Amino acid sequence: MTERSVYAVIMAGGSGTRFWPASRRARPKQLLPLGGGEALVREAVARVTPLCGTANVYIATGRHLVEATGAVLPELQPEQLLAEPVPRNTAPCIGWAVATIARRDPDAVVMALPSDTHIRDLEGYQGCLRTAIAEARSGVITTIGIEPTHPETGFGYIEADPGAGPVLTVKRFVEKPDLERAKQFLASGNFFWNAGMFIFRARDMLAAIETHLPELAAGLSELDDAAARGQEAHILDDVFARLPAVSIDHGVMEHIAKLSVVPGRFGWSDLGSWLAAGELATKDGEGNAAPDGTVVIDGRDNLVVDMRSGQAKRVVALVGVSNLVVVETDDALLVVEREASQRVGQVVQALKDRGDDDLV
Amino acid sequence: MTERSVYAVIMAGGSGTRFWPASRRARPKQLLPLGGGEALVREAVARVTPLCGTANVYIATGRHLVEATGAVLPELQPEQLLAEPVPRNTAPCIGWAVATIARRDPDAVVMALPSDTHIRDLEGYQGCLRTAIAEARSGVITTIGIEPTHPETGFGYIEADPGAGPVLTVKRFVEKPDLERAKQFLASGNFFWNAGMFIFRARDMLAAIETHLPELAAGLSELDDAAARGQEAHILDDVFARLPAVSIDHGVMEHIAKLSVVPGRFGWSDLGSWLAAGELATKDGEGNAAPDGTVVIDGRDNLVVDMRSGQAKRVVALVGVSNLVVVETDDALLVVEREASQRVGQVVQALKDRGDDDLV
Repeated sequence: MTERSVYAVIMAGGSGTRFWPASRRARPKQLLPLGGGEALVREAVARVTPLCGTANVYIATGRHLVEATGAVLPELQPEQLLAEPVPRNTAPCIGWAVATIARRDPDAVVMALPSDTHIRDLEGYQGCLRTAIAEARSGVITTIGIEPTHPETGFGYIEADPGAGPVLTVKRFVEKPDLERAKQFLASGNFFWNAGMFIFRARDMLAAIETHLPELAAGLSELDDAAARGQEAHILDDVFARLPAVSIDHGVMEHIAKLSVVPGRFGWSDLGSWLAAGELATKDGEGNAAPDGTVVIDGRDNLVVDMRSGQAKRVVALVGVSNLVVVETDDALLVVEREASQRVGQVVQALKDRGDDDLV
Repeated sequence: MTERSVYAVIMAGGSGTRFWPASRRARPKQLLPLGGGEALVREAVARVTPLCGTANVYIATGRHLVEATGAVLPELQPEQLLAEPVPRNTAPCIGWAVATIARRDPDAVVMALPSDTHIRDLEGYQGCLRTAIAEARSGVITTIGIEPTHPETGFGYIEADPGAGPVLTVKRFVEKPDLERAKQFLASGNFFWNAGMFIFRARDMLAAIETHLPELAAGLSELDDAAARGQEAHILDDVFARLPAVSIDHGVMEHIAKLSVVPGRFGWSDLGSWLAAGELATKDGEGNAAPDGTVVIDGRDNLVVDMRSGQAKRVVALVGVSNLVVVETDDALLVVEREASQRVGQVVQALKDRGDDDLV
């Protein structure tokens, strides 16, 4: 196993609205430094380059995001950015990237990973990926399952056959459970959060697509033929428009007979809302995370985020308030109760409904 | 009684900190449109000009506020703005203004009124003032007492002898009570809020000052002598520095044997905090008062105030929050729980303590 036979596909086409007003159509979650450091997609790349090298990273994103994505990853070559003309969910996204890699090396191992999460324990994460790469190299499509820390109802789960060791056999994928089932999952020890991380040989994934998503396989075949003639770009829009919009989970993974899972607990956060971002932020003794100079009188567990582009001096003062998230951009101010963070998307919808397109 | 024999002295030297970040040292409460219309001092003047005419209005303010005060009252002549070189509380403030008026007309009736309150029922207020003017013209110093609507512990009270009719006799002034006493006051019907409104003949007030504050009377006499020689401005700093800093209540009113009070209920608000400002604001069906375009998802009884000077488009969104006051200026953002509004002054103190003088 050489590093040169390992590739990463970072899926960076998301357009979430939960981080409004920081996130916008042209600046979605993965382009924001929500983990407290750099843009999430940049951190996602930095986590895997020790495993595959910078030259073997592909970013799968939308055409309207290519420029902004490239701007936060200037070390990548333009051909490493795969710009989907229209969003078609993760199966076409991964399929196109894998087909592209397979043209160079069908035996390459590919890590298909999300771009918009946070991982605290980098070494733990890389260890799981190394285990998964070894497993994939043996011809088994492999996923990473997050060991649950609480009975979460917002994620899908992966059930594994009981067993020990760093690699388990997947029994089934499970949709988001209700609280009662989530508690059972947590207690059983055989259920893991599905974090959308898949590791496989390129040829194995293409074969699985051929079997389970023949329509997608046909489209990828057209792209391969065109690529051989240097014409891929010319037919991309036409082919993508005809691809089925389906997730890799529903379209492929759930139908594969033999699948492995590498359980891991490496401080993973899906960064699903401002609440989650607040949990990652550096806090003072009162639980407040805010820019230097913020004045807090009798307030706890507040998160203040200043994403204004200008450098104008501005002070924020909080008096007698707790559990608030306050986010400022140049053109918007959001104040949301932490536990209501999931509902920020409703603001985006309200703005769309009234035609305030420049604000969404 | 002609209008020309009635004067108004609007006391506009206050420097409250409770309306930070809208209020600043150079832009105190009375210069802000906190009642939802124009600057409070301008509204205070507009309320009395039907009774005394614009030419008979004096504004008593601090020297550092003269320019800004004149800017919101461009119809006044410079000599109608009395600029105190140093703040010396209300007795010297009123004394100097009354001495100035008495040089023109010692029999003039003077209404000494605050600049930083809100009054909803203009006709009711003017009716009380007319009654008080008539009473003052008979030689009795008169105050207006606000009929209490609740057992307020934040105001001083005026107790009147039991009686009916538009004019009662003052029995005594009472300091801010505790809640138990405030409830008794409310129940008795003989107690009124002291709103700092005094109506009197100029000669009567000067005589009272002569009796009860001889040190102030001596200073005013010096100013009179200098004014007769056209030299008042030259000695003003020197004289003011020597005047006793005492309120008209403690220094004069509480010692006067015969004093009248005109009770009134005319929608008076002392605008003591953002909470009070919120009560005056126009609200939607959910109790929210906010600029047009504000998005509120599941929130009630919030007040949003935008006092930024620029016209840049900006949207405010509130999600899952209630009873908040949000105030934006160019250089500050305040988020305060309504009931904590009284504590906003602590922010100003914190900013002073750390040397952020440009923000206070």
